[in-house]
Amino acid sequence: MIQGFNPRTGKPAGEPVEETTSADVDAAVAAATEALPAWATLPDKDRARVLEALADALDERAKELVALADEETALGETRLTGEVGRTTGQLRLFAGVLRDGGYHDVAESPAGGGIAEIGRISHPIGPVAVFAASNFPFAFSVLGGDTASALAAGCPVVVKAHEGHPNTSERTAQIATEALARAGAPDGVFALVQGVDAGLQLLKHPGITAAGFTGSTAGGLALARICADREVPIPFFGELGAVNPVVVLPGAGSERGADIASGYAGSLTLGAGQFCTNPGLLFVPAQDEALRTAITDAVSESSGGPMLTEKIHSAYEAALAEIEAHPAVASVAAGATGEGPWGATPRLFETTLEDFAGDVAVLAKERFGPAGLLITYPSAEELLPVLARLGGNLVGSVHGNPGDQADLATARQVIAVFERTVGRIVWNGWPTGVAVNAAQHHGGPYPATTAPATTSVGSTAIRRWLIPVAYQGLPAELQPTQLADRLAETAD
Amino acid sequence: MIQGFNPRTGKPAGEPVEETTSADVDAAVAAATEALPAWATLPDKDRARVLEALADALDERAKELVALADEETALGETRLTGEVGRTTGQLRLFAGVLRDGGYHDVAESPAGGGIAEIGRISHPIGPVAVFAASNFPFAFSVLGGDTASALAAGCPVVVKAHEGHPNTSERTAQIATEALARAGAPDGVFALVQGVDAGLQLLKHPGITAAGFTGSTAGGLALARICADREVPIPFFGELGAVNPVVVLPGAGSERGADIASGYAGSLTLGAGQFCTNPGLLFVPAQDEALRTAITDAVSESSGGPMLTEKIHSAYEAALAEIEAHPAVASVAAGATGEGPWGATPRLFETTLEDFAGDVAVLAKERFGPAGLLITYPSAEELLPVLARLGGNLVGSVHGNPGDQADLATARQVIAVFERTVGRIVWNGWPTGVAVNAAQHHGGPYPATTAPATTSVGSTAIRRWLIPVAYQGLPAELQPTQLADRLAETAD
Repeated sequence: MIQGFNPRTGKPAGEPVEETTSADVDAAVAAATEALPAWATLPDKDRARVLEALADALDERAKELVALADEETALGETRLTGEVGRTTGQLRLFAGVLRDGGYHDVAESPAGGGIAEIGRISHPIGPVAVFAASNFPFAFSVLGGDTASALAAGCPVVVKAHEGHPNTSERTAQIATEALARAGAPDGVFALVQGVDAGLQLLKHPGITAAGFTGSTAGGLALARICADREVPIPFFGELGAVNPVVVLPGAGSERGADIASGYAGSLTLGAGQFCTNPGLLFVPAQDEALRTAITDAVSESSGGPMLTEKIHSAYEAALAEIEAHPAVASVAAGATGEGPWGATPRLFETTLEDFAGDVAVLAKERFGPAGLLITYPSAEELLPVLARLGGNLVGSVHGNPGDQADLATARQVIAVFERTVGRIVWNGWPTGVAVNAAQHHGGPYPATTAPATTSVGSTAIRRWLIPVAYQGLPAELQPTQLADRLAETAD
Repeated sequence: MIQGFNPRTGKPAGEPVEETTSADVDAAVAAATEALPAWATLPDKDRARVLEALADALDERAKELVALADEETALGETRLTGEVGRTTGQLRLFAGVLRDGGYHDVAESPAGGGIAEIGRISHPIGPVAVFAASNFPFAFSVLGGDTASALAAGCPVVVKAHEGHPNTSERTAQIATEALARAGAPDGVFALVQGVDAGLQLLKHPGITAAGFTGSTAGGLALARICADREVPIPFFGELGAVNPVVVLPGAGSERGADIASGYAGSLTLGAGQFCTNPGLLFVPAQDEALRTAITDAVSESSGGPMLTEKIHSAYEAALAEIEAHPAVASVAAGATGEGPWGATPRLFETTLEDFAGDVAVLAKERFGPAGLLITYPSAEELLPVLARLGGNLVGSVHGNPGDQADLATARQVIAVFERTVGRIVWNGWPTGVAVNAAQHHGGPYPATTAPATTSVGSTAIRRWLIPVAYQGLPAELQPTQLADRLAETAD
């Protein structure tokens, strides 16, 4: 049985849910496999309509879902209501992607050299396994971005629920199943499984053709290796950990130190710091005492919140203990501890660039929660090579004064480093807050992700679930309708 | 030392070449890493010019290279001359891809929800390792498709030469190095290493960010797992083995049996059968005795050739021995044995669909060389589920009579199976002969490749070496020139 808990009290939240049996995992994959041909060949406009029906059904039940999720995650009504909106917005975004049709990536080349003409179009890869995240009970969970993009691509999806919010997951899945049936989607196109064993069985199942994951580096890496070691290896799209370096340039610090300090503390403690985009490393000019004071003050005045699970909270405490014991690190600020037995305390630690460079392996580790490390750097020349040694990150941010030529020159160098090491570069902003749109790239080199060419947020997330097929010499009547139609349009 | 051999005599071909030392592998990767920023940021038109300079240099030395390669591979002057042309054609194709610029995959989304506007552009992933193939000493070797596409993407490349043609590889690399220097490419943008140990060291090197491979399933799978098990896992693009099923429908067999028989024998024995696109499995209507006779006759009249290496030849002999000993298989035809100690004999085996279905694991294995298995099928209904059980393949072919409604109806069903299992579907043609163009997809589910969304032939092969970066709120002056320019164009 899987029991959810209320992070505000540590007490059970709702009834426990059953772990999915091995036979039921097999049945879910078999049903997904059976659903594939009908779902894959459904015209774009019809699949779009089904996604919108899912979005409508979630919106209708938003209040109920938010209440359930708040009990299991303590993320609060405002945030959770916004997150349902983001989730239904994602489903509608992909409905738009389907209506646009460009995702098919159609291409045509004429005959030549004795070889007939070729038309190419992308098809869904097949049944997909999605591993839901703890920290977004809606947007990266049962009907989150991975599920929405895979369904949009024409792939049936089997989701492995996160243990942190079992009832929210069950209820979302019920709503989805009913909405899919009402909208005329084939049976088996969506299923939910619960439990670690069920998840592992799912990932190893021969019927699964690709997997998406959002979670820890250790967990993601273990699953990635399972995928690589299968008899038939499958693509694994894991979005793992990140520390998302933020660099404050001297001109920005002196121009608007107070804003930077409050912005930083806000981003650090948002959602009790439980974001993959949390700004874990903050690089600040060593000479700017005022900025450091402002930042220290801002974190001291901040508040934590209840963390999602006991496990996440104890991992956070262990990470704090490790950095606190580090000889080169000083603890410089602590905010108010969050509510409940798993309340997180915002913490700020400080070290010098030289000391940081001396132990990057430990000091640049992700500390999932509202813990920041402020690193004072003496000069851009010294900063750049250290920045380049960081592993892959989802986001790198630079704060500079646009009117300060020195800042701009350094910013260019910092950006050049980030272009090799992060998925998204932010100017005068914070890494938390991920827009869901056509240009978004929520990815980055390992350990940010296991597949640096792909994104798990935004329109192009659909590309992960598509594989091209080339048609050589096929008359239009034997081509897939969508290829024949598009080639006919081009020919007009 | 690595010694090449003349397949026509089994005697050494030219002088042996040195295996690359561990220090030299390190130096090559260090130089590639150093070359990355300059190569990555070179304007498209300049990188295009460098690719064309490489093509010109190869064309100038074509006669010399063909002579060297013919001694080491015995593939013959005509084929090898054509292959140099294909190789230089590929380099020029990618020059065109660069001038077009669409490969940057630029996108823009407006500000919204408190988040600044985002522009996205793709960047080269970093230094790439390329493992050359035995069977294409030019087109899938030192300056083959993987190298051309990775250089085009802005990635420095370190190639691991195939042991089968060490001197051809060395000479090609010398020509490339000189041409790159003359064209003003940064030092270190290209290097060649020789030897299995050097290749493994290269693949494990922390400076390598992605790898391309063309070769056997066992070899590719082993390298894929090395990539997954690295401290920092990297994307591995392996094009492995395939048996490329061909289905002859009843109407086609009776309409043009003689053409099908001769076309099949030609495709089966082309290049001594040493193609990843070789038609290893041929499904023929059980009732069409005349077609089976014509096919048997065509293979009996065919000729083999010298195989590339002693190892490939002995693997072929072992594969023949295995299928010959199979109780459900009859040996029905043999062509003339090729020249030299490693001459291949074209062979045709036959079995029924029922027997084939009873031992797919053994009977559908790749037998690299001119060995075909003819499978007689009683009906389309019985054929389809067996076809669906085959693993991933690069190509699936269907021969049907376009005027025969029964053929067309069955063809649709066969194509629906192929859409889930192959990278390219051919109508009334043969799988060998791979066009290099914008619509090509030379890929397919495992074991055809380890990365089914990608192709190793054609314009979109460049996508394997690119990763997107999103720029949030960056003023145009801080964006990469190519992003700023394209966004400015869009705004006009």
